Amino acid sequence: MENLIRYAEKFFDEVEIAVYRSRDVSANVELNEISMASTRSGAVTIIRGIKDKRLGLAIVDSDEEKRVKEAIEQAAKMARLNSRDEKWVSLPEPGKYREKPKPNYELKEASPDVLVEMLVRAIKLAREKDKHVVVAGGEGGVSWEERQIVNSHGIDVFQEGGAAFFFVELVGRKGDVVTPGIFDFDAKRNLNLDVEGVVERAVRKVKWAYSVKPSRNEEVPIILGPWAIAGLFSYALLPAFSGERLVKETTPLAGKVGEKIASDVITLCDDPFYELSLEPVIADGEGVPTRKNVLIEDGTFKGFVWDNYWAKVYGTESTGNGKRDLRSGGINIGFHNVVIESGKRSLEDMISEIERGYFVDGFQGAHSSNPDNGNFAVTANPAFLIEDGEVVGSSVFLIAGNVYELLRQASEVSREQTVMPFMNTITTPFIRFENVKIAGK
Amino acid sequence: MENLIRYAEKFFDEVEIAVYRSRDVSANVELNEISMASTRSGAVTIIRGIKDKRLGLAIVDSDEEKRVKEAIEQAAKMARLNSRDEKWVSLPEPGKYREKPKPNYELKEASPDVLVEMLVRAIKLAREKDKHVVVAGGEGGVSWEERQIVNSHGIDVFQEGGAAFFFVELVGRKGDVVTPGIFDFDAKRNLNLDVEGVVERAVRKVKWAYSVKPSRNEEVPIILGPWAIAGLFSYALLPAFSGERLVKETTPLAGKVGEKIASDVITLCDDPFYELSLEPVIADGEGVPTRKNVLIEDGTFKGFVWDNYWAKVYGTESTGNGKRDLRSGGINIGFHNVVIESGKRSLEDMISEIERGYFVDGFQGAHSSNPDNGNFAVTANPAFLIEDGEVVGSSVFLIAGNVYELLRQASEVSREQTVMPFMNTITTPFIRFENVKIAGK
Repeated sequence: MENLIRYAEKFFDEVEIAVYRSRDVSANVELNEISMASTRSGAVTIIRGIKDKRLGLAIVDSDEEKRVKEAIEQAAKMARLNSRDEKWVSLPEPGKYREKPKPNYELKEASPDVLVEMLVRAIKLAREKDKHVVVAGGEGGVSWEERQIVNSHGIDVFQEGGAAFFFVELVGRKGDVVTPGIFDFDAKRNLNLDVEGVVERAVRKVKWAYSVKPSRNEEVPIILGPWAIAGLFSYALLPAFSGERLVKETTPLAGKVGEKIASDVITLCDDPFYELSLEPVIADGEGVPTRKNVLIEDGTFKGFVWDNYWAKVYGTESTGNGKRDLRSGGINIGFHNVVIESGKRSLEDMISEIERGYFVDGFQGAHSSNPDNGNFAVTANPAFLIEDGEVVGSSVFLIAGNVYELLRQASEVSREQTVMPFMNTITTPFIRFENVKIAGK
Repeated sequence: MENLIRYAEKFFDEVEIAVYRSRDVSANVELNEISMASTRSGAVTIIRGIKDKRLGLAIVDSDEEKRVKEAIEQAAKMARLNSRDEKWVSLPEPGKYREKPKPNYELKEASPDVLVEMLVRAIKLAREKDKHVVVAGGEGGVSWEERQIVNSHGIDVFQEGGAAFFFVELVGRKGDVVTPGIFDFDAKRNLNLDVEGVVERAVRKVKWAYSVKPSRNEEVPIILGPWAIAGLFSYALLPAFSGERLVKETTPLAGKVGEKIASDVITLCDDPFYELSLEPVIADGEGVPTRKNVLIEDGTFKGFVWDNYWAKVYGTESTGNGKRDLRSGGINIGFHNVVIESGKRSLEDMISEIERGYFVDGFQGAHSSNPDNGNFAVTANPAFLIEDGEVVGSSVFLIAGNVYELLRQASEVSREQTVMPFMNTITTPFIRFENVKIAGK
């Protein structure tokens, strides 16, 4: 890489070369059968060079010297054609990294066979447990990634690691009732995925869903599950912590550091080294050391997260939250591993105390939430009616609200914590919220 | 390939090997600057083998013999684990292909430079034409694909070709008004993309959008543009022509062959060899010869389209509409090049006759349309108010309706035809519809 940086310095004032090599194996289920197994691998090199504050960015799906040099020349041409970005300060300087976690090399060579075997086991198990169940969909996957980020200021960091995930979607048909698709998940840094637990939880939810209960307009306690929380927070809440939005004045959290924005039970951070983390990275996408960033502590907003560019525009330091978008090649502010702290009691105990309320497994429509103000309008589905401390059936209803109001209504977090490996990886307990207005459907 | 088929036949009763090699170059714009140039290429091999009516499907991103053999073994293992698909009949037999079109090899070696140059020209032009305009986004791309489909019944077909596309998104800011994102497009089988035309049309729409007009509940004539039509029809209408949906009883067109489902002005077909087609394929994703399939002729529904599997389940023949999904490896019923026939008069003439009505450039929310019955609820944005034969400003409104009712309200199609290269490639004129109920917003 050293000679490529030297080559690129002929064209640029400063330059970064990032190489990502990946291998992904996966297997899929459709309607009780294995529908596909795939093995994919590849390399992508991204050149980001700056000349007279003009940016050039080129991507090539190779790590061969000849093609990387062509990409460098491509980026140089682009920089000449672009106009000056007067806000540009500089690429990051080297920092001090934590000790690298030990990668689990069994994930590097994983075969789709192990995933096919898991899925076959899951199908068998689900249909044994409930003969009315169809495994409508599902997937197992193992990904491995090697990243090297090098820049002309001396950053040179190599990282490697992998993760495995697994999910099923069950549909139950019993009498006239066809349940909605019921999901459950597991994701880990090893292959010991909890197939039995995933199936058991999903089948339990299907059984609940056989009894369909009407919903009505009311104000009730609700418990949100990990999938619902991950969906809603990813769109309505997490973007608001971005320093870029602070600069652009599109976050409702501007000026609120140190203020209470949630109830005491909510502590939320981005922590790549959390024990359940799928991506324990020591450096972010531009080579800045990562760290644990607390976003909300006991309900109090603690601060924004930054990448190198927006931090320097604002006059602060990168928090190590520059995430590389491998499609656009650019760096966006993002998270490595969002964690919501867990509590003391089990989901079961929490359910047992609700006289009338709902347990919401998933939300539809969360993607149209507005992170500028936290407003959202979602359909709770699958959702389950709780009466006298027990789940008595499934229901569908609407919630139109504001995520910050909701955060202040949080009253308890469960002991169980689940890793949701979608969009942002979010590790979250079940959370109970009080007096939530719902609209029957 | 011959020896790979022989190797695979050891494991399967019948087997198909499909190899896709592709090369894609692209360049992107963000906020008046070139943000990225990329060059990607790769090969994917998909094995579909059947043993005792059990399916095995494996994907590997390589065309090397060793890795393809591994994928064959992977598919064979999967087939052993799956249960019998009693509906399975057989893979396709060889058919007679039309003469291959001559590929345009300039697209095979295209450099991102030519796209960067086009985008730089577009940015310059747009800002010269209107200094209040920002080129918020845009992209130019050239893709090249080589496909070989071989099966153990003797199908062996090789095809190659490419296409280029170009679009810009403009936003105008003038006084207090910020226009919505205004798009325009071009796509062709050569590099002579109409940059000037794209920019001119987009700038004209931005100018219209500087004057914001309130919308109200009313029943008016509307003209839908190509982008709006492509969006709405892709989700609400086109899936209904699928033979799979006929078998599964999820299409409202069941039993309606020969019936009038649209007004006389609507003729719609799938025609890979249409002169503006981006993909003049002689064979579909499983090697079945393609043909022109008329779906609606002068308003009359002419029939469904089929792939090999569902055609044999139903007892008919594939219409050459098996499309390969390179992600899942599977074959789905789809279209190569949807064409809506054009008319005699220009868009301008059509606008000039409207006393009060709207020209709708784009729809939001079309993806939540229901193809089972044709119902949709969309936001028309960008949309432009027409008064006394002239566009007088922009407006936003809702239409909740049914696509088949809409098709019966069609009264004229324009002379101009535009290729929309998204999801399904759709070549369409502007279409006028009478008495459309809209809801002000």
